[in-house]
Amino acid sequence: MSPTDLDRLSSAIRDVQDFPKEGIVFKDITPVLGDPALFRLAIDGLVEFIDGQRVDKIVGIDARGFIFGAAVADRIGCGLVPVRKKGKLPWKTHEISYALEYGEATVEIHEDALIEGETVLLVDDLLATGGTSAAALELVKRQGGDIIGAAFFIELGFLDGRKVLEAEAAGEFPVKALLTY
Amino acid sequence: MSPTDLDRLSSAIRDVQDFPKEGIVFKDITPVLGDPALFRLAIDGLVEFIDGQRVDKIVGIDARGFIFGAAVADRIGCGLVPVRKKGKLPWKTHEISYALEYGEATVEIHEDALIEGETVLLVDDLLATGGTSAAALELVKRQGGDIIGAAFFIELGFLDGRKVLEAEAAGEFPVKALLTY
Repeated sequence: MSPTDLDRLSSAIRDVQDFPKEGIVFKDITPVLGDPALFRLAIDGLVEFIDGQRVDKIVGIDARGFIFGAAVADRIGCGLVPVRKKGKLPWKTHEISYALEYGEATVEIHEDALIEGETVLLVDDLLATGGTSAAALELVKRQGGDIIGAAFFIELGFLDGRKVLEAEAAGEFPVKALLTY
Repeated sequence: MSPTDLDRLSSAIRDVQDFPKEGIVFKDITPVLGDPALFRLAIDGLVEFIDGQRVDKIVGIDARGFIFGAAVADRIGCGLVPVRKKGKLPWKTHEISYALEYGEATVEIHEDALIEGETVLLVDDLLATGGTSAAALELVKRQGGDIIGAAFFIELGFLDGRKVLEAEAAGEFPVKALLTY
């Protein structure tokens, strides 16, 4: 993806002050989603990360990860596996809890989501602290998925989520983001 | 879409008893999402509904509607507008509340989501009672969107949501579902 294309994407992202709570500047990606050329460009960029590797399943994280994950899965012709907050998936699940700033959160994946050895790309809109993504990767590993990468539209570099995911990856797969702030 | 293709999709859907609460039989679509051929077929079916009409924006409903909406938007090269439960969208919103069996729910759309006269296709995974979809259509109308249809992967016919949406449509656009139970 060219620097010009990345600039086009970056220019469309809207900073929203104090969302979801005071002191946070939220990166609003809806102007990218709503623009046909920019939405396509964002999906192009995520597909480029795959670089021709075989991907059996995209694991997409609830809810904005579904947007990017589904479009990438349809483009490359693979399946989509949702990882959701506890209580949202209807069938038997594996779950994992992880620490938040205050308290903890739990995410789930269906027990039959992956077959051992299937190649998996994790897709989400945002790499922030990395907590949810690391939990999702751990769920994939427990089902024997062969993770080939974690791909994000945006990375908030100052939150150091990359370190968390690279520890999870242990050099076995790359962590990539189209735009880093 | 051929009857054989529809049978393939329907056969993959899993009935889950008592989800999300006792007495409800939930249609679990994750086996469709996870199968590359079936996921592609489902998106093919939704794209067929458009039948070559111009669509400027897909309006997708949080969260499974994002999956189908994003893939359809990427296929046909249009923008995606998320409609979400109150408090999830970061910027200025229009909102609408609607009655549930007990209490009410509120959904939102960004104020700048649509330009007057843009053509819109509503996409969601499930047409149940039609409450959320009717609210989303109302939000689109208030922004001057020109609705060309409402497209669902599954319709639960016995819940009569179609009547609610057809009242909202007043003959001006079709309500379509790939699979009806």
